[in-house]
Amino acid sequence: MNRTDLVKQIFNKKSFLCVGLDVDINKIPKHLLKEEDPIFAFNKAIIDATAKYCVAYKPNLAFYECYGIKGMVAFERTISYLKSAYSDHFIIADAKRGDIGNTSTMYAKTFFEEYNLDALTVAPYMGEDSVKPFLEYKDKWVILLALTSNKGSHDFQLIEDKNGERLFEKVLSKSQEWGNEDNMMYVVGATQGKMFEDIRKIAPNHFLLVPGVGAQGGSLQEVCQYGIIKDCGLLVNSSRGIIFASNGDDYADAAAVKAHDIQLEMANELSKLA
Amino acid sequence: MNRTDLVKQIFNKKSFLCVGLDVDINKIPKHLLKEEDPIFAFNKAIIDATAKYCVAYKPNLAFYECYGIKGMVAFERTISYLKSAYSDHFIIADAKRGDIGNTSTMYAKTFFEEYNLDALTVAPYMGEDSVKPFLEYKDKWVILLALTSNKGSHDFQLIEDKNGERLFEKVLSKSQEWGNEDNMMYVVGATQGKMFEDIRKIAPNHFLLVPGVGAQGGSLQEVCQYGIIKDCGLLVNSSRGIIFASNGDDYADAAAVKAHDIQLEMANELSKLA
Repeated sequence: MNRTDLVKQIFNKKSFLCVGLDVDINKIPKHLLKEEDPIFAFNKAIIDATAKYCVAYKPNLAFYECYGIKGMVAFERTISYLKSAYSDHFIIADAKRGDIGNTSTMYAKTFFEEYNLDALTVAPYMGEDSVKPFLEYKDKWVILLALTSNKGSHDFQLIEDKNGERLFEKVLSKSQEWGNEDNMMYVVGATQGKMFEDIRKIAPNHFLLVPGVGAQGGSLQEVCQYGIIKDCGLLVNSSRGIIFASNGDDYADAAAVKAHDIQLEMANELSKLA
Repeated sequence: MNRTDLVKQIFNKKSFLCVGLDVDINKIPKHLLKEEDPIFAFNKAIIDATAKYCVAYKPNLAFYECYGIKGMVAFERTISYLKSAYSDHFIIADAKRGDIGNTSTMYAKTFFEEYNLDALTVAPYMGEDSVKPFLEYKDKWVILLALTSNKGSHDFQLIEDKNGERLFEKVLSKSQEWGNEDNMMYVVGATQGKMFEDIRKIAPNHFLLVPGVGAQGGSLQEVCQYGIIKDCGLLVNSSRGIIFASNGDDYADAAAVKAHDIQLEMANELSKLA
């Protein structure tokens, strides 16, 4: 999906919500465990309930890989279902890959050709040749880790060089030599609050994928205050806060209510841009 | 596998060779494509031919994931075969994972419980909570990316902070607050030559996993000159140089010859430690 279409979706739906499909089999309603593929059954119900309130879905591969082959089958079924029933949604594989050039090329094939997804999260540590193979696909996106939402983000990402430039800032500036606003986004955690101001100085027009609203404690309002731009430029993700809103039979309805609440807040933020 | 057993293997076999099982289906002998599972058939022959010359195997997950479910089946079959036929070998999943705490916990379960592998490569960018879940398993290892073998390693890994400490050095020192010489190794590319000297100043006793000998141009002799320690402390990986030594019917024999050549060089280096 290209930027124009993504932005169109956002303003049509008045939403820049991304729903994280991070399914933990221990947290889904017990009656689903009788299904032949409980993870897919859960995802399908969550997707049907939330699709009208969000523009993107983000399955985190770890939550599928951890169940081996049967997890990957659930992942593939989820992707096919999204592609057939909700083809307008932007799909992000949250995989945080990053390897030497020939390996990244393999990963790019997997996610952009085999699964035909829109975007993949990539870790920047290995530099240019680990990122570039992903940028060779038209209308596909690399979402590079810049400033993540977790506590450990402070260990390395904030290290300053001799000129006071922090590592995440270096990632933002250096990577702009490889990709552009139409094929690269950045992960910036909602927990980073005012840092969005610094990020917008270096990447004023890039889309940012923002995890950490909800369970991790980030505030949507603060993210928008410092991060939103004219064509929105944000995809805000919520995973646990939506998909595990209830662990009873009403889990899908509860997810819909939660997603709708966030969408209403987002509509309000978008209305300020007019 | 714990350090004592790994070191025992190395000195018994006079080898610290790790064979990288990075199977590209376009590079394997054509007659294997008729097999029901060509990747596993290839791996099995390579393993049988090289097992006596190496102490470790390292499948890179990208090369399996890129074939979807059938790639993962080949991966699982390869692991089971290794576990049953060559249970003394150390098995590394080269996956370069690294995510927020709860996700890393899922990955740790996959690789250390589901597959029961010995070690996993992990990317350090997200810091402490992305690494620690892997360190909670007895006799299992995190192999943290420090200074990689690719050209892009220079983009971020060599950035110096105000005190002249480079990012890879910070990764080496900071991570020693989380793990120790018995559960953590570091990836250092063979292409980094004299840098091994600097690395040994910060991590004098850790095992290093060294890719980049062979196809990527690193020299075993140079790696040993600066990197070897009393109990060896090195696992040197070769992938393409061994497994694709020939693309004819003699591919397994050719791999054995290549692995044997390297093992002889290694025996020579180990003999200098006596």
